[in-house]
Amino acid sequence: MNHTEKLTRYTANFVDELVISGLRDVVISPGSRSTPLAMTFSEHPEMSQWVILDERSAAFFALGMAKKKQQPVAIVCTSGTAAANYFPAIVEAYYSRVPLAVLTTDRPHELRDVGAPQAIGQLKLYGDYVKWFHEMALPEADDTMLHYVRSKASRAVNTASEGNAGPVHLNFPFREPLVPDFTLENLWGEHTGHAYYPTFTGSRKLRDNQTEQLFDQLKPYGKGLIVCGPHTDHNLAVALVQFASAWGLPILADPLSQLRAGKHNKDVIMEGYDAILRDETIRQKLKPDYIIRFGAIPVSKPYLFYVKEHGDVPQFIVEQEAGYREPAGNRSQFIYADAVELCRELAAKKNTSDESWLASWQSMNHIAKHHLLNQEEDLTEGSAVRVLAETIPEGGNLYVGNSMAIRDVDTFFATTSKSVTILANRGANGIDGLVSSGLGAAASGEPTALLLGDLSFFHDSNGLLAAKQYNINITILLINNDGGGIFSFLPQKNHEQHFEALFGTPMNVDFSRIVGMYDGTYAHVSTTRELQDALEASYRYHGLSVIEVKTDRTENMNWHRGKWEVITKELLKKLSS
Amino acid sequence: MNHTEKLTRYTANFVDELVISGLRDVVISPGSRSTPLAMTFSEHPEMSQWVILDERSAAFFALGMAKKKQQPVAIVCTSGTAAANYFPAIVEAYYSRVPLAVLTTDRPHELRDVGAPQAIGQLKLYGDYVKWFHEMALPEADDTMLHYVRSKASRAVNTASEGNAGPVHLNFPFREPLVPDFTLENLWGEHTGHAYYPTFTGSRKLRDNQTEQLFDQLKPYGKGLIVCGPHTDHNLAVALVQFASAWGLPILADPLSQLRAGKHNKDVIMEGYDAILRDETIRQKLKPDYIIRFGAIPVSKPYLFYVKEHGDVPQFIVEQEAGYREPAGNRSQFIYADAVELCRELAAKKNTSDESWLASWQSMNHIAKHHLLNQEEDLTEGSAVRVLAETIPEGGNLYVGNSMAIRDVDTFFATTSKSVTILANRGANGIDGLVSSGLGAAASGEPTALLLGDLSFFHDSNGLLAAKQYNINITILLINNDGGGIFSFLPQKNHEQHFEALFGTPMNVDFSRIVGMYDGTYAHVSTTRELQDALEASYRYHGLSVIEVKTDRTENMNWHRGKWEVITKELLKKLSS
Repeated sequence: MNHTEKLTRYTANFVDELVISGLRDVVISPGSRSTPLAMTFSEHPEMSQWVILDERSAAFFALGMAKKKQQPVAIVCTSGTAAANYFPAIVEAYYSRVPLAVLTTDRPHELRDVGAPQAIGQLKLYGDYVKWFHEMALPEADDTMLHYVRSKASRAVNTASEGNAGPVHLNFPFREPLVPDFTLENLWGEHTGHAYYPTFTGSRKLRDNQTEQLFDQLKPYGKGLIVCGPHTDHNLAVALVQFASAWGLPILADPLSQLRAGKHNKDVIMEGYDAILRDETIRQKLKPDYIIRFGAIPVSKPYLFYVKEHGDVPQFIVEQEAGYREPAGNRSQFIYADAVELCRELAAKKNTSDESWLASWQSMNHIAKHHLLNQEEDLTEGSAVRVLAETIPEGGNLYVGNSMAIRDVDTFFATTSKSVTILANRGANGIDGLVSSGLGAAASGEPTALLLGDLSFFHDSNGLLAAKQYNINITILLINNDGGGIFSFLPQKNHEQHFEALFGTPMNVDFSRIVGMYDGTYAHVSTTRELQDALEASYRYHGLSVIEVKTDRTENMNWHRGKWEVITKELLKKLSS
Repeated sequence: MNHTEKLTRYTANFVDELVISGLRDVVISPGSRSTPLAMTFSEHPEMSQWVILDERSAAFFALGMAKKKQQPVAIVCTSGTAAANYFPAIVEAYYSRVPLAVLTTDRPHELRDVGAPQAIGQLKLYGDYVKWFHEMALPEADDTMLHYVRSKASRAVNTASEGNAGPVHLNFPFREPLVPDFTLENLWGEHTGHAYYPTFTGSRKLRDNQTEQLFDQLKPYGKGLIVCGPHTDHNLAVALVQFASAWGLPILADPLSQLRAGKHNKDVIMEGYDAILRDETIRQKLKPDYIIRFGAIPVSKPYLFYVKEHGDVPQFIVEQEAGYREPAGNRSQFIYADAVELCRELAAKKNTSDESWLASWQSMNHIAKHHLLNQEEDLTEGSAVRVLAETIPEGGNLYVGNSMAIRDVDTFFATTSKSVTILANRGANGIDGLVSSGLGAAASGEPTALLLGDLSFFHDSNGLLAAKQYNINITILLINNDGGGIFSFLPQKNHEQHFEALFGTPMNVDFSRIVGMYDGTYAHVSTTRELQDALEASYRYHGLSVIEVKTDRTENMNWHRGKWEVITKELLKKLSS
């Protein structure tokens, strides 16, 4: 068998096995050394291919797509710093538990450590940020090696997905010539009808005595609190609301919990808790008997203060798989079990809560929402998010940037009976890669809005090219406060000498030009009415649509603080009455 | 001593020691956790500060600056994926031996591994790509700890610079509050007038018997060849030419050798060797008796073929410090010694060469140059580089992109008596970070041109923001062949079905828009005359100036091949006569 046939059969069996094992999307960045994999992915009839030039954007695009689809996505690049550009998205995927199959290509061993061009050490390149690394063998195509390459493909897909999902990394050395021959007979290899390693992964379930033991700790108390952090399992909402309703408990629901939007009952969902918990006196008065948290801690900083100030309150943290996400530093009981199943079991064990506890939360939540969501005409960061929430179509996605964007969604995205999936990169909370992450989710074809600030828009503006190339429908709501708006809320604000240069960092650029460069539609809006019209129109457009809202960082800070003060004042009056 | 005083004294002593140890430039990316370092750098009167938003660009900006200045530059970022965005530039700095002090800031230990926001594992984040990693202690300010922090600052600067230069990484955990107090007395600490670790690093020098042993191997032969790869030491040119002239040896000089431009004699410099060595018959006829190479292998692929085809020819590789850069895979003798000193010693030991050997190379070089550099009007990738070389001002810098740009400079940048420094990122040869690298060099204030293709321009278009922010004078010559021009020279070209999507990757965008967004001057030129005028004008402008030449990938390939064929034909005729 000649070199080209060995190369072709090796890569064809690998790619075919990825498909059979359930991976259907690949994001390829151009290069030479990656030719065998790139061309084979292109050739496979059941693989969807996305070619994205900037590897940093490519990896975030794959992340957004994998997060939305809840399926592993492959990324392929050439050797050298191309692979290093994947690093930010790999770190994010690791912490936010998103399955990626990272496939880097490399010079063969005789061209390593000799100063050959584009040859860098790629073994374990991503350190502890991948769940599994394997250096692939050079292409061979006898039965043993075709079984080998299939087994590694199957394991890559399984490992990325099982347990806490995350990235895996395979590094492929390839010798020249690099072009495969797709005219070979039986190109895709032996088809047995199933994957090399079909895998049945059970979900974790508490034994009856463990559930009893847990219930025994909860039942004496009437003022329990359910807290729900980021989740992507849409089944959780119904089960969790059922449990909370049965026990009469309020749920503090992070915007990424998928609890605020959907057909389920929202009576027990308190989306205004961030505003409610701004004041220390209020936080003291609202001391709970226990907290059951599902998943990671919510984004809300007042909630963090609240839980830290009540470190003596028993806290239970429910995770699907082992993890230690407890940044408050409180003692906690960890429950590693399927959340839906656990909610059903607890809901069945009727418990009686202090009725005034839930009623009090409901009434406070009503007050907070009344002030946060009133139909003012002024276009602020808050009213922009409110209008965005109101106009997003049924079945749509909202991808949310970090820094101010996610906090504004926390504050201004009210419960709704529409089905909307809200996603964000909360693994490492970076401002990088967001345009691409949003586009990766938008590539699903569902109506998708991306909310982000000007620094994030700038940071990944290269991501916009994919919208042009693939005519992806996306609505980007760009909140431009000309710099780092979140810093105005921090003590650094008081140091005028350094503030604008180091933290405010105004760019003062006209983003309509870059939107135009990528054939997008651009609108600058100044009122809530204009914003509403522009948003509604954008969902009818094809391709990229950017709507810019310009705000002032200091005004924005004062406006937010004004809202919180009014709410705090009214809540304090109510709580002391 | 309170928290803020400890924090302030710790960071102030650190930054002050960097200055005393010789580091004068810092590139800061905005963030919160980095506040103590960022503000202290800003406050120090002897530190030049550059604030660059995109950390990937920031690190490449520092790389270009450090490469130009031959001085270490510090980079500072906040915690999380910000630090991961540094990775591509760190890999490049490692392989191209550029000193960087990478200063990442981090959450303190109690906020690690608990799911806290923007907290990722940053220890040894860059794996084997830094020369030294140290996890800094939490800020303290007793004498012991101020000595400690100074010692680490001094060591960081020294380690980055000594031996084979490269990046070092210090990770700083900081607790809140993060804002230092610059009103403290004796803010910058105890001044002894010298660094904590003043370091005298000797250069390597062969013992007399080693030089004799080397000379004994060379003296029997008349047809020696000197090859010079990338160097930044401008003293090398004179010493090397003196040695080559004394022995009557031709020098094949890579464009990055700093041998092609300058006041030294150029009679023995063969800059046309890439075109000369295109043909296998010619390569066979030009078998040398030995090769002495200074530094890494040149960019030329024909040279690589040449040296591989003559694997039996004794090869000597001179490096300042230990290294194994020999991608041809040939047996080699490594000489670790200061090149300038070695050249002087060898020049003193008069050797007599085969006179026809040098004359033959000179005549072939003349023929190659005649065809490559004729004053044609048509604007091609070749004539564009020729005009660029002709117009670049005395004392200027040329930063060259990878892929086609460096190859075109190799072919079309002729020897000149102007002083021009030619720089490129040849550590890993990536197409990333080039706009920022060029701007980092341009920040020196010397006239600077950056030559690069459309994929590189796109990849680091975020780098342009620095030109606007700091009004840096730079001339960017953008060769736009709408995609990956180099791939047209590879076998992938023959696979039409996949070629454009995977390799050609046309973007079809109007770059004038992004140049305008960053307040740059843009010109599209169609003739060599227009190009010449635009280039000359650009050196008189302030700020960013982008000149775009649009070419066709296939035409370009045919044009290059046409040139090489004519040259080969004439050389073959000559060699057989």
